[in-house]
Amino acid sequence: MLRIGLVGTQFIGNLYCHSLGRVDGAEVTAVASPNTAAQFAERWKIANVHSDWREMVASDGIDAVAIATPNDVHAEIAVAAARAGKHVLCEKPLAICLAEADSMVQACRAAGVVLMYAENLVFVPMYQRVKELAQRGHVGTPFLVKQAQCHGGPYSPWFWDVERAGGGVVLDMGCHSIHSICWTIGAWPEAVTATMGRYAHAEKGLGEDHSTVILHFPGGAIGIAENSWAMPGGNDYLEVYGPKGRLVANLERGPAISMYTAPGAETAADSSSRSGWQYPMYEEAWQFGFPQELQHFVDACAGTAELQSSGEDGRRVLEIICAAYESARTGRRVELPFASDKRKPIDHWLE
Amino acid sequence: MLRIGLVGTQFIGNLYCHSLGRVDGAEVTAVASPNTAAQFAERWKIANVHSDWREMVASDGIDAVAIATPNDVHAEIAVAAARAGKHVLCEKPLAICLAEADSMVQACRAAGVVLMYAENLVFVPMYQRVKELAQRGHVGTPFLVKQAQCHGGPYSPWFWDVERAGGGVVLDMGCHSIHSICWTIGAWPEAVTATMGRYAHAEKGLGEDHSTVILHFPGGAIGIAENSWAMPGGNDYLEVYGPKGRLVANLERGPAISMYTAPGAETAADSSSRSGWQYPMYEEAWQFGFPQELQHFVDACAGTAELQSSGEDGRRVLEIICAAYESARTGRRVELPFASDKRKPIDHWLE
Amino acid sequence: MLRIGLVGTQFIGNLYCHSLGRVDGAEVTAVASPNTAAQFAERWKIANVHSDWREMVASDGIDAVAIATPNDVHAEIAVAAARAGKHVLCEKPLAICLAEADSMVQACRAAGVVLMYAENLVFVPMYQRVKELAQRGHVGTPFLVKQAQCHGGPYSPWFWDVERAGGGVVLDMGCHSIHSICWTIGAWPEAVTATMGRYAHAEKGLGEDHSTVILHFPGGAIGIAENSWAMPGGNDYLEVYGPKGRLVANLERGPAISMYTAPGAETAADSSSRSGWQYPMYEEAWQFGFPQELQHFVDACAGTAELQSSGEDGRRVLEIICAAYESARTGRRVELPFASDKRKPIDHWLE
Amino acid sequence: MLRIGLVGTQFIGNLYCHSLGRVDGAEVTAVASPNTAAQFAERWKIANVHSDWREMVASDGIDAVAIATPNDVHAEIAVAAARAGKHVLCEKPLAICLAEADSMVQACRAAGVVLMYAENLVFVPMYQRVKELAQRGHVGTPFLVKQAQCHGGPYSPWFWDVERAGGGVVLDMGCHSIHSICWTIGAWPEAVTATMGRYAHAEKGLGEDHSTVILHFPGGAIGIAENSWAMPGGNDYLEVYGPKGRLVANLERGPAISMYTAPGAETAADSSSRSGWQYPMYEEAWQFGFPQELQHFVDACAGTAELQSSGEDGRRVLEIICAAYESARTGRRVELPFASDKRKPIDHWLE
Repeated sequence: MLRIGLVGTQFIGNLYCHSLGRVDGAEVTAVASPNTAAQFAERWKIANVHSDWREMVASDGIDAVAIATPNDVHAEIAVAAARAGKHVLCEKPLAICLAEADSMVQACRAAGVVLMYAENLVFVPMYQRVKELAQRGHVGTPFLVKQAQCHGGPYSPWFWDVERAGGGVVLDMGCHSIHSICWTIGAWPEAVTATMGRYAHAEKGLGEDHSTVILHFPGGAIGIAENSWAMPGGNDYLEVYGPKGRLVANLERGPAISMYTAPGAETAADSSSRSGWQYPMYEEAWQFGFPQELQHFVDACAGTAELQSSGEDGRRVLEIICAAYESARTGRRVELPFASDKRKPIDHWLE
Repeated sequence: MLRIGLVGTQFIGNLYCHSLGRVDGAEVTAVASPNTAAQFAERWKIANVHSDWREMVASDGIDAVAIATPNDVHAEIAVAAARAGKHVLCEKPLAICLAEADSMVQACRAAGVVLMYAENLVFVPMYQRVKELAQRGHVGTPFLVKQAQCHGGPYSPWFWDVERAGGGVVLDMGCHSIHSICWTIGAWPEAVTATMGRYAHAEKGLGEDHSTVILHFPGGAIGIAENSWAMPGGNDYLEVYGPKGRLVANLERGPAISMYTAPGAETAADSSSRSGWQYPMYEEAWQFGFPQELQHFVDACAGTAELQSSGEDGRRVLEIICAAYESARTGRRVELPFASDKRKPIDHWLE
Repeated sequence: MLRIGLVGTQFIGNLYCHSLGRVDGAEVTAVASPNTAAQFAERWKIANVHSDWREMVASDGIDAVAIATPNDVHAEIAVAAARAGKHVLCEKPLAICLAEADSMVQACRAAGVVLMYAENLVFVPMYQRVKELAQRGHVGTPFLVKQAQCHGGPYSPWFWDVERAGGGVVLDMGCHSIHSICWTIGAWPEAVTATMGRYAHAEKGLGEDHSTVILHFPGGAIGIAENSWAMPGGNDYLEVYGPKGRLVANLERGPAISMYTAPGAETAADSSSRSGWQYPMYEEAWQFGFPQELQHFVDACAGTAELQSSGEDGRRVLEIICAAYESARTGRRVELPFASDKRKPIDHWLE
Repeated sequence: MLRIGLVGTQFIGNLYCHSLGRVDGAEVTAVASPNTAAQFAERWKIANVHSDWREMVASDGIDAVAIATPNDVHAEIAVAAARAGKHVLCEKPLAICLAEADSMVQACRAAGVVLMYAENLVFVPMYQRVKELAQRGHVGTPFLVKQAQCHGGPYSPWFWDVERAGGGVVLDMGCHSIHSICWTIGAWPEAVTATMGRYAHAEKGLGEDHSTVILHFPGGAIGIAENSWAMPGGNDYLEVYGPKGRLVANLERGPAISMYTAPGAETAADSSSRSGWQYPMYEEAWQFGFPQELQHFVDACAGTAELQSSGEDGRRVLEIICAAYESARTGRRVELPFASDKRKPIDHWLE
């Protein structure tokens, strides 16, 4: 049984605890948060409560640390956990600068612990099936892969603070799209071209709220990552185009039921207030790959699975994002590898 | 660990073994079939092979019998299994006449063993979500529920022999639709109206290949079961209509990927020969509820779950089907309960 | 130029005047209505205003009468118009009893004037294409045709008064479905089975608000007409099934744009208050066939087109509806032809 | 009656003659083509036949010239027609270099004749409705507009000869996407970024067969034109995104019927050989705006409509395409206006 200590009690913290209900071989035995740990522990029946994550990381009661905090503290926690001999599962993005990302990778490697980068899209059943169908040759050799991650804006104020978040939507959600495009194609890009702007939330901060990132792969294939905080109604799709055909998967509309509720109709107490056409999913956490992602972490820690979505992968995605900001500022295609010594990715765009 | 003895090695037999890969607490330890048991056992690593199911049913090496045979031998096997103290999982339809169905229910009750009727639709995640959303009041009190089970025709010749099958599509597939409509509404009907005919396969036998069955529920709600062996391209949907709105779930197109392959394109060796627009599913067995159905049987045998989809349910569905044939012949609404002493359901229509 | 005198200034009256903008060879030169004729005439630039339709029908200033009134006065106006030598375009349903319908057909035949029954569905471009594709053999010989006409309830109070309307939804909207199914198959049915009830609006009157009508065609093909005043969100589809495949056309979602507007978003003054996912159509009147229907009437009056959708057709649809009510009451299949001397169709169900 | 002389007898020539069946006030009275004019004239009942377009342009029997030839002769014909006092309708793209385009605009202006650039997308009813809904504020101020024009490759060999065509897919089909994006937003871009390549047809010529063109509009809005000759199955959509929502229109799937034909089914003689799921449209020429485009030309020549889609528009689209090629080669954003003295647009990419 892998004993997990969780840092963070917000959206992702709850999602982890919910998803662990479908995972074998792990339990959350401790949680750390300055103010809300006790309440969270009661909700999810967690034995140990810490107000300071350092205390939890140092304790003997856990084997692994799951980092579900704002981006700017990922690296510090991960390095401390590695030094304490704990496996690490880190939320996306891996860190807010390449130096931090490097320190995480090195610390975990030196300690011989697992550093898993929590990219759920590579565990999404629908997208795994798309990749398999592409590999079986149904569309010929893919030359274009598109992935979108879009919604109407983040739920928590820290996302709008570029000092804590490190950037806007291309960092927050572009990391999903970029990673899953590379995973689908089975390669990393050699250059990137990007355009971005503030369209719907300019008053909230400096972060871009819509971006288009073009990935140039060796041999000429193209990836297009579309990411938005300015798209109420949302989007989450993966599309693969080859000379013989295409594969199109829509994660929001695919495993969904069409529901129409008459405007003004009295709805049951526990339902939302929305009406008209809606598209509720079934088995939503599973469809988004969260239990599978956590199971994989548990298996990797147990040595029974070879790690997918490693710290190195997360580092590489971060490098591409830095290059995307540089491209958006300069209006030029930026070659990879791309060295960055900025404190945060968005500094390439803001300067 | 529940040790299951499987009778039958065709489509359903394979599906059970495949689905048991996602089930905890059970294994197939024996298989019985006159000619193909050894080959099947080798494929699925099953220890014990029997050419006669009677021998297997009598053995000490199994705790339960799964019946995956043509319809006309369900009852004999189930009664023998019950008398040998084995739990029973029986494929749909339960039997080919009400007397047989009664004997199965009574034998299992007398022996104190579980008799589960293998209706997978009530374990389909998409349909479970539809039922939950309906129960939460999103559409008001449902007054109309539709379910369809349609394809271009069955895979095995015995389906066309009404002596072995007991009827045509309304028995083979209508049992799914009728059961899932009643489960969604949470009631059994008080009458039935039906129309059916032979449209695409009249030369193959006496079984009807398309049917529309209207279920009349207490209070006035209506169910419409549409079933076809004459519909290439297929259909599998559940729709719930209330005065405030509707829920529409399409099991074939919902959890599916849109794939276009150019006509004439060279396809990979292991792909099918089809081209143009196609809609491949992901996690197909799970989407159709098979592993969940088997897990439920295992749990019910272990006494940790209250049996859903019981022998009594299967008997009731069979009674409704008899009444549907009667209605199709007479052109009248037929009231339930409906007594039938015909040897097989379709006799109500053929006479 | 065909000079049309219009009786009625409500929904259909406006629709006619709007649609005539795309019709050659006709103009509305007079309008009759007890109270609203002047205002209507001003809106649509109509020269002559009458408070009494009898006066208008008798005038020399018109060549044809378009009847857009409640159902119970169709026959009286049509007969008077025919006797005055005017062509007649009559809204659906043709009349509220077979005797009235017969009188209309006979009066127009005796006068040698055109009696066109205003069934727009046979002029819907999408449905015409479905019929053409079926006739070209793409699905084999059709054995099942479905048509639905459903919405959340009528706009005007007289629809709920069965004395004026003659019935509920099976008369109001079933006439469309029944007619278009027969037109698609190219035959009239030999029997009908129906079920209906009051599900969403029982407090408003005696009219049924949801119905399922099964049409039995010579040779065994089946038509299913689904009609509802209890289905907010609506439905309008035509589906044709044959042994080789199917044709599915959705008139509400087909020629529609997907629009998402964020809940609570400030919308432009002239837009509706709805939000979330919506499906606005383009060229809506054309998609529903109204200008084409009116053009056909003009051409038929000019003798340049052979009349489709005749008074005889409308009479036949009314007969089928009477039989459907009889079937819903008795729970039996009702053979056609069906003689009815009821004052209104719903009397077959209510007695 | 506008008497039109048509140059060209291939796909577009046939489309024009077909679409003129729904146009008032015009007829094709002459056709010119070196070898096929007589046969074409017989098919479409055209009175006058010319093997040399110069002869036709000079004749008194026509009032206007419609240019439906390969791209490299557009300018010569248009200038000659203008000098002969004939109105000009010119297929897209306007010409294959900016100097030619300027000469066309100047010649027509000097002669006082209409020069209409045949961009059908601005006449597509579905897209006009999208623009209207956007203008009514349903999605807020648009910040992103996407348009795609994709198929599996052109029908005629000259498209692959860059000397005749002037470029590949970004010229052939990108002109549609770029123009319709600018029309939807109501502005011209200030810069362009593009990427393109040869993915499916590299052996056929130098033209690119897939491109992504990003248009940067004043104020920051973005347009994305996706164009492909490497996408069997095709795409033709217009999408508008604003901070409050989105509008999505799919011209290929919108006004389409879902048709399933069983693989291997015997199909009627006049149907195509394809099977499986297909999506036939209805009123296809109208849905694509061709009759409306031609009607507009007729009305503009008659002086009763203000010209949309002018020669100046076509020239501007060509300039953007030159800049797109430049951007694809340099990997940089290219500012507009962009001066080009290349003989053909693709020279910016090939050098």
